[in-house]
Amino acid sequence: MTTTTLKIDGMTCGHCVSSVQEEIGELEGVTAVDVDLTAGGVSTATVTSEAELDPAQLRAAVEEAGYRTVEG
Amino acid sequence: MTTTTLKIDGMTCGHCVSSVQEEIGELEGVTAVDVDLTAGGVSTATVTSEAELDPAQLRAAVEEAGYRTVEG
Repeated sequence: MTTTTLKIDGMTCGHCVSSVQEEIGELEGVTAVDVDLTAGGVSTATVTSEAELDPAQLRAAVEEAGYRTVEG
Repeated sequence: MTTTTLKIDGMTCGHCVSSVQEEIGELEGVTAVDVDLTAGGVSTATVTSEAELDPAQLRAAVEEAGYRTVEG
């Protein structure tokens, strides 16, 4: 198991969290997506996966949900 | 056609707007639900319907979406 931490900007509510969890959850090997919401600021997502994830794929999933990743 | 204006507290983003539009849109006779979002504050929803709507049903729909109506 591998854990990846992501910083995501622009989420404001539980719906936003669900969207991000859904998109990241569709990536192969992802087993859990926990999000610590900071409404209107930078939230933290912790992604658990069977193997290491491609950062570009993670970014793309976040963008697909309508948000963007920011540097740590 | 009748138009009803509602003040709704607690919506923060487009997902919130969609939830409210979906719940109100399920009420009988509703033909349109326009929402002017004030993120984190009091938003205004304008509901167009074939006949006058029951205020209690409107409130219940908003609550079903996870928000509440406020006076004024």
